Amino acid sequence: MRHVDVIIIGGGPAGISAAIWCKRLGIDHLLLEKKQELGGQLTKIQNEIIDYPGMYAENGRKIQLIFAEHISSLDCCCSLNSTVLSIDDSQKTVTVDQEGKIETIHFHYLVLASGAGQRRLGVPGEQEMLKRGEDYSATSDGPKLKNKTVAVVGGGDRAFEGAIILADAGVNVYLIHRSQTFKARSQFIELATKKSNITIMTDTQVTAIHGENRVTSISLLNHTGETSTLNVDAVFVRIGIKRNSELVEGKVDINEQGLIVTGENGQTSNSAIFAIGDVCTPSICSSIASSVGQGAMTAKYLSSLMG
Amino acid sequence: MRHVDVIIIGGGPAGISAAIWCKRLGIDHLLLEKKQELGGQLTKIQNEIIDYPGMYAENGRKIQLIFAEHISSLDCCCSLNSTVLSIDDSQKTVTVDQEGKIETIHFHYLVLASGAGQRRLGVPGEQEMLKRGEDYSATSDGPKLKNKTVAVVGGGDRAFEGAIILADAGVNVYLIHRSQTFKARSQFIELATKKSNITIMTDTQVTAIHGENRVTSISLLNHTGETSTLNVDAVFVRIGIKRNSELVEGKVDINEQGLIVTGENGQTSNSAIFAIGDVCTPSICSSIASSVGQGAMTAKYLSSLMG
Repeated sequence: MRHVDVIIIGGGPAGISAAIWCKRLGIDHLLLEKKQELGGQLTKIQNEIIDYPGMYAENGRKIQLIFAEHISSLDCCCSLNSTVLSIDDSQKTVTVDQEGKIETIHFHYLVLASGAGQRRLGVPGEQEMLKRGEDYSATSDGPKLKNKTVAVVGGGDRAFEGAIILADAGVNVYLIHRSQTFKARSQFIELATKKSNITIMTDTQVTAIHGENRVTSISLLNHTGETSTLNVDAVFVRIGIKRNSELVEGKVDINEQGLIVTGENGQTSNSAIFAIGDVCTPSICSSIASSVGQGAMTAKYLSSLMG
Repeated sequence: MRHVDVIIIGGGPAGISAAIWCKRLGIDHLLLEKKQELGGQLTKIQNEIIDYPGMYAENGRKIQLIFAEHISSLDCCCSLNSTVLSIDDSQKTVTVDQEGKIETIHFHYLVLASGAGQRRLGVPGEQEMLKRGEDYSATSDGPKLKNKTVAVVGGGDRAFEGAIILADAGVNVYLIHRSQTFKARSQFIELATKKSNITIMTDTQVTAIHGENRVTSISLLNHTGETSTLNVDAVFVRIGIKRNSELVEGKVDINEQGLIVTGENGQTSNSAIFAIGDVCTPSICSSIASSVGQGAMTAKYLSSLMG
């Protein structure tokens, strides 16, 4: 069985930084990325990035290219198209599917940098919508949706912020929330309530998304059991963030927010497993800079452990 | 009295990142840097920097220039040549000497990013030596010191590593340590012991550094009370790192290693004071990337506190 001292799962900014630092410190390492390119959530950032010290980038794609080039110029060990199927923390092995080839690799330390993504509704029609590329940004796509009708699903800051941005772009917005109370900050709620082109529907769940080539309507269910159909041109699902921590569930402590509990160097409750980046960082504290910092700190700490 | 929501003390990578993020998040801020330029310890890095993700730099000066340009292009609020004289945490004020002008500024939150530096011996002649620029790097200056005699003072990894690098460059080295036991790793001690041009002197203190235009000798005192003089051409003081935490002593918890104790977002035991960068990070975990990450996380956290 192949052995690698440090296996890093996930090739976003945290994993990239960990790999760079492992290389720099002479640590035998392997970064496993399930997609065909590195970057994680970077490629989804449409806005300009002005807050990564020392760099200005028009969008996330630009930084993704620079980071991937850095990894490549240092000759870090990375394996793309590599999905981790399971982790055995007692045997210290991971089983990986590398384009159909299954391999089990032994490790000393595992660094989980698997990130986070949008939480999904899990209703019929949602996956089809996403596969068609109907995964919009309020900021970038608002102007294109002018005079159209959209549903924004959720009750937190991101749902309200998205609804307000869309309304300001001239979009007719239904803000649909399954409960009667909102987590969003009060300024957002007040502002949304005042907009004539935002209709707020509480105690209402979306049960299906319909449409063949594009979204045309959604099915709704309210708390009294009534169902209805609402014609919409787009659906924005803004129901929070989901951490990609399935691989280590039951193996490390995870808090009530779904975050892996970590010490200052990424230590988890399992001495063989470390976590960095969005899988263990609250959204309000997450950034490219913080992920990169966590990757560096954990690699330096591992170097000290391995003497 | 002038009020600023967030005052950042220290303009190294951590403070720079905090200022960039404050600007980015619309937080009223002021970065106070005592020197005439930003960068902190960056300008002292002589080696190439390959481990800050997304950037390659020949040396620390190059990154310092890029970071300073970033701060300037975003129009962050920075005040150079500004030495903080004192902090009153109950009144939430700092008193600053800005090129002779004394001002007291009120704050909501203070972010201490004052960094760390070499611990000094505190003996006569040391300050004069440093002022003359006789503050050498074993790596860069070793070849220039070939066939000369130098003293390396200290008993840890950095002292031994420096002694070995110098010896390999053909320098005659006296490694002088005040106790009989070393903190350095055993491989370093074994290697140094084998080198014919390293003489290890234990139980010996340096009590003075002599020389008019350059170092010519040092005074020594051993544990039996004997004094002696050793002719040397240079002195490398490698007795550890000192955190620049004087301003908050007694105001925040500091651990036995001299590090300010912080939570994951830079919180200290004092709710008005945050700490980031080398002032609160063990050397083994410190890097440009980690400091930058801490600056970002703390600024984002402060933004959430201020709603």
